[in-house]
Amino acid sequence: VDFKVSGIMTLTSDFGLADSFVGTMKGVMLCINPALVFVDISHQIPPQDILEGSFSLQSAYSYFPPGTIHLAVVDPGVGGLRRPLLVVTRDYLFVGPDNGLFSFIFSDSSFQAAYELTAGKYFLEPAGATFHGRDIFAPAAAWLSTGTPISEMGRTIHDPVTLKIPEPKVIGTSKIQGEIIHVDHFGNLISNIPVELYERLRAGWGNRSIRISILAQGIGKIVRYYGEGSEEEPFALFNSSGWMEIFWKGSNAAEKLGVRRGEKVHLYTV
Amino acid sequence: VDFKVSGIMTLTSDFGLADSFVGTMKGVMLCINPALVFVDISHQIPPQDILEGSFSLQSAYSYFPPGTIHLAVVDPGVGGLRRPLLVVTRDYLFVGPDNGLFSFIFSDSSFQAAYELTAGKYFLEPAGATFHGRDIFAPAAAWLSTGTPISEMGRTIHDPVTLKIPEPKVIGTSKIQGEIIHVDHFGNLISNIPVELYERLRAGWGNRSIRISILAQGIGKIVRYYGEGSEEEPFALFNSSGWMEIFWKGSNAAEKLGVRRGEKVHLYTV
Amino acid sequence: VDFKVSGIMTLTSDFGLADSFVGTMKGVMLCINPALVFVDISHQIPPQDILEGSFSLQSAYSYFPPGTIHLAVVDPGVGGLRRPLLVVTRDYLFVGPDNGLFSFIFSDSSFQAAYELTAGKYFLEPAGATFHGRDIFAPAAAWLSTGTPISEMGRTIHDPVTLKIPEPKVIGTSKIQGEIIHVDHFGNLISNIPVELYERLRAGWGNRSIRISILAQGIGKIVRYYGEGSEEEPFALFNSSGWMEIFWKGSNAAEKLGVRRGEKVHLYTV
Repeated sequence: VDFKVSGIMTLTSDFGLADSFVGTMKGVMLCINPALVFVDISHQIPPQDILEGSFSLQSAYSYFPPGTIHLAVVDPGVGGLRRPLLVVTRDYLFVGPDNGLFSFIFSDSSFQAAYELTAGKYFLEPAGATFHGRDIFAPAAAWLSTGTPISEMGRTIHDPVTLKIPEPKVIGTSKIQGEIIHVDHFGNLISNIPVELYERLRAGWGNRSIRISILAQGIGKIVRYYGEGSEEEPFALFNSSGWMEIFWKGSNAAEKLGVRRGEKVHLYTV
Repeated sequence: VDFKVSGIMTLTSDFGLADSFVGTMKGVMLCINPALVFVDISHQIPPQDILEGSFSLQSAYSYFPPGTIHLAVVDPGVGGLRRPLLVVTRDYLFVGPDNGLFSFIFSDSSFQAAYELTAGKYFLEPAGATFHGRDIFAPAAAWLSTGTPISEMGRTIHDPVTLKIPEPKVIGTSKIQGEIIHVDHFGNLISNIPVELYERLRAGWGNRSIRISILAQGIGKIVRYYGEGSEEEPFALFNSSGWMEIFWKGSNAAEKLGVRRGEKVHLYTV
Repeated sequence: VDFKVSGIMTLTSDFGLADSFVGTMKGVMLCINPALVFVDISHQIPPQDILEGSFSLQSAYSYFPPGTIHLAVVDPGVGGLRRPLLVVTRDYLFVGPDNGLFSFIFSDSSFQAAYELTAGKYFLEPAGATFHGRDIFAPAAAWLSTGTPISEMGRTIHDPVTLKIPEPKVIGTSKIQGEIIHVDHFGNLISNIPVELYERLRAGWGNRSIRISILAQGIGKIVRYYGEGSEEEPFALFNSSGWMEIFWKGSNAAEKLGVRRGEKVHLYTV
């Protein structure tokens, strides 16, 4: 496997920004490659929430230049038996714990190979038991950014841990049951219903009206952008990432509807 | 209009830091100009609070090197009819929605011109309806940072949206009625009363004593720095940006006084 | 004193990320040295909490490349008589208020000298009374990063303010009384009991069992990593910085135990 690095490194973690964890990882990496350019994706993944970390990285990774290394550390199993992982795709490297954080990429057509990071000489020695972000993942990622051959970093594996990512269910020809997979900073409820699936089913629905409900509450209708919503009730739209999203104009939909991640949402015709 | 870029880009938004919105914008920009240097001003503008976004940017923009591009996205009207805006001043470019976010600059002597961004070839295509930060503002700003001529980006406009920024009122010769325009991280209450106005009126007050009140509570007196305050009651000073500020030594004045942005404050002599 | 700068500048403060304070400091520094590379350590030090700021910087500073300048501003005495400080060690410069923020370095073998920053020509003029981060510390640090000789910046002092950092007490040969010196983002309780002290005492304890208690609650036992803990009760380990840490697997130990910084913790044998 050959890979050309860009010198750009993104960081995603559940470390928060109050402690010095993130800064320390960057310091470690600058000691190895002083020319690195860092971009933080998020450090406010809820503690140990691998699924949220995965969602966050999935939303962002493909907007970076080819050659970018994506370092992600949401790592409840730190210090134990879970393996340190390197994933190679056509355009990117992903470095982090082998716990499913990178599940979304394994089935992508750009996926090339996965490696267990084993070459201790590229770690801080001796690695402690609580902060592999600093001691293993950051230095390994930084050495990769200097052009260290992937073959020197570890050994190929064929069984990286894969999370079950919630999929929408099509029920008959008139109903999609989806799930809220993310609540954003504004309280918008992002579902796992993609616009392509909706368009495909709707093609057979003719002029029949479309309903959306969540927690037994009806959603106004599907509009094109937030401004077309109403301050009186929630509306839906397909967002710029292609997912159906429920919002409440000028308010926090999650709070007003009492909805959290994992709630089921139904889109159907009557 | 000619403009020499510095390669520095500031970012201001209400996107928060938990989602991947900000990182995604940076990725988009690095694809266009890998040499960009980013500085975050704030991403914790309260959701859709254009006035706070404007205050934040106004406090910071002039401390950056000439040639800096200031990208700001607080954009409740995303996807609707509001125009994407480029503002050119003697030293800076401002890129963001035409909703008043840059009002403070239109009446500045350094203001040169405003443009509606119309050149779709400098946007991500097709632009979605919910994330123009990623699809329109970030790529347009990044293309500007590469030296793309301003004349290629859009067309001059003469009616950018202008917010009414609260101004202090002088009542007779003995009283200023101001307003709290910002509550900072420490709970300090920043008013819109500038030191110049205060000095001008005070020149006519001789030895008469000076009073300050907010929410019917008296403020100790005006001191020079925080350390001269008291832990027993709130004091005032003129801060390093030239505004009258109410603080409570060692405490959060906003919480202790129950004051929020928009509250009136009176400075007068008796 | 001679010192070779790396062009890397870390920032630590209690300014939070909602206001424009941090961005403004970076703008000021880029005007002086456009090639600076910034790394944020933390801006969420609790307001005016010098001890937390000191802990945060102490945890991180040594992971940066030699030549790094560490700028830190937790500054309740801003505008008053406290001196602006420059500390020189073998590998780093530290710039900030002389209030004890850098206490941990004065007794380190790498410590070389401390200076009061006095050369006003390297400050923003006129310096205001509330934001020396912008007006004094940032510009002084940026000038240092350009190679300005240290001897031009101020005068040597021999009495920098030194905080009393809590030390663990050894009671007889069977007990260590420590203190929680930091509660991290995950709610882990970091004590001031170093692994070396523990190992030394334990060597004389033979097979006797080891107990840990905090707030009259017993801690399960000492394990090697988080995964060996239990969801039923708190455990302890020695973390990657060498401190004894109390954690609760999958939960926030601080919340579940009702413990805050400053609480005493006992490690003993029976």
